[in-house]
Amino acid sequence: MTFMPPKAATVGPARVLRWEAGARARRLRDELAAEEPLEIRVDTRPVVVTMRTPGHDAELAAGFLVTEGLIQRRGDVRKIVPYERNDSGNVMEVFLAPGVSVDFARLTRHVFASSSCGLCGKASIDAVHQHFPKLKSRLKVRASVLLRLPERLRRAQAAFERTGGLHAAAVFDARGRLVVLREDVGRHNAVDKVIGDGFLRGRLPFDRHVLLVSGRASFEIVQKALAARIAVVAAVSAPSSLAVEFAKRSGQALVGFLRGDRMNVYAHPERVVFDAR
Amino acid sequence: MTFMPPKAATVGPARVLRWEAGARARRLRDELAAEEPLEIRVDTRPVVVTMRTPGHDAELAAGFLVTEGLIQRRGDVRKIVPYERNDSGNVMEVFLAPGVSVDFARLTRHVFASSSCGLCGKASIDAVHQHFPKLKSRLKVRASVLLRLPERLRRAQAAFERTGGLHAAAVFDARGRLVVLREDVGRHNAVDKVIGDGFLRGRLPFDRHVLLVSGRASFEIVQKALAARIAVVAAVSAPSSLAVEFAKRSGQALVGFLRGDRMNVYAHPERVVFDAR
Repeated sequence: MTFMPPKAATVGPARVLRWEAGARARRLRDELAAEEPLEIRVDTRPVVVTMRTPGHDAELAAGFLVTEGLIQRRGDVRKIVPYERNDSGNVMEVFLAPGVSVDFARLTRHVFASSSCGLCGKASIDAVHQHFPKLKSRLKVRASVLLRLPERLRRAQAAFERTGGLHAAAVFDARGRLVVLREDVGRHNAVDKVIGDGFLRGRLPFDRHVLLVSGRASFEIVQKALAARIAVVAAVSAPSSLAVEFAKRSGQALVGFLRGDRMNVYAHPERVVFDAR
Repeated sequence: MTFMPPKAATVGPARVLRWEAGARARRLRDELAAEEPLEIRVDTRPVVVTMRTPGHDAELAAGFLVTEGLIQRRGDVRKIVPYERNDSGNVMEVFLAPGVSVDFARLTRHVFASSSCGLCGKASIDAVHQHFPKLKSRLKVRASVLLRLPERLRRAQAAFERTGGLHAAAVFDARGRLVVLREDVGRHNAVDKVIGDGFLRGRLPFDRHVLLVSGRASFEIVQKALAARIAVVAAVSAPSSLAVEFAKRSGQALVGFLRGDRMNVYAHPERVVFDAR
């Protein structure tokens, strides 16, 4: 197993003209969230290009393949390295272990279909459950622990304060200790990166853990969490209807608007212990 | 040309458990942003599934095909109708006019590659410019007009206040009058919907117009704007590095952090007239 050193280009410099009504426009130095394409290849075959923030690309590649259901065990992967014929740093090659094969047709369909596989929400959910069974764990998390997570996320976030342009995803244990946090211009990429980190370190499944995302929770986010067996998903902002339906049918608690000293629980509230603070 | 009536399911009801530290959890009725898959077919061939907020699906289908570069003129499309063999409302069929054909290989690659076509940012930009030439217009917009747009966007936004879960995209004319606004759980879908509306009404190109998005501006957003020939793109939040690079090389003004009485201009500030308020 090869780990790539993280690239340090999460943010980059920019020159900007700032204008405030009634004043002259001023030239300032600013910082921007970095966005570049990343191509992921499996056994030399290109399978996807995603627009992502450079850095933690091996984790992104691994997490993408895990959450698409193509690899399950750390031993499935021999190594993940940058493509040697391209020096942009924007192509990662995943080499599978001997004897491991993946269903590229499934991947193509999945990627092509943007994480959906059916013609209605229910069909999409059923398709995911065929590959990632519903959760049966009895994990519970204390509400007082959940309340503390957004502040921990913000303190650990390296780039957001500077650019305002990055989504964050973080995995915490059930006592609220940060396991891993990643940032990306793409919400789904940030989630793939934290799950890929768990995969590469042999920490999956995350079945005693909470996933927190800095923004909204869509179907795709909750589906990726299920692939890592995460039973509690929390978002600082709103969930979508299909995220809620998915969480209900997957056995996942789904918490939204986790801010200040309050939260909304949209699915499986029995996983949250509403303790005094 | 057939227009579909908009579906009214932008938001849907939900039951939620709200907990505030020190109090008991309470059951409340809430509303969620609706998310469902939409399959788009062209001449009976399925080309993409996107997770979107139902409503304005003909516009979404049209806008997607315009911003992917597959159709250019209103006359290219004979009709856009729901797939009659599926009653979910989640499959739209686009029928091209006689004699019009599209390059499906291009679409497949494009979709597959998430709007990217290369291995680095510059290659991605070059690939887009092969299909959508750079802008040469001399359009200028007054900064005082831009400052008023976010408030107009918010007032026109039907669902956001209720759910907090929808992205908005709106097209304004150069005097700040709202032309069209759409909301969606997917930022790129909201942009496709406003562009698709312009296409179906024969209003494209939007070359005397401003695009405003409620959140961040990524490469994909600015690229879609170029497909509609939009020379001024504004975002309430931050742009990404590649969005800025793309706008610079496409001749588009890119405005970020458009809030209160200020803004940052990241590309082509000569298109903004910094007038007193």
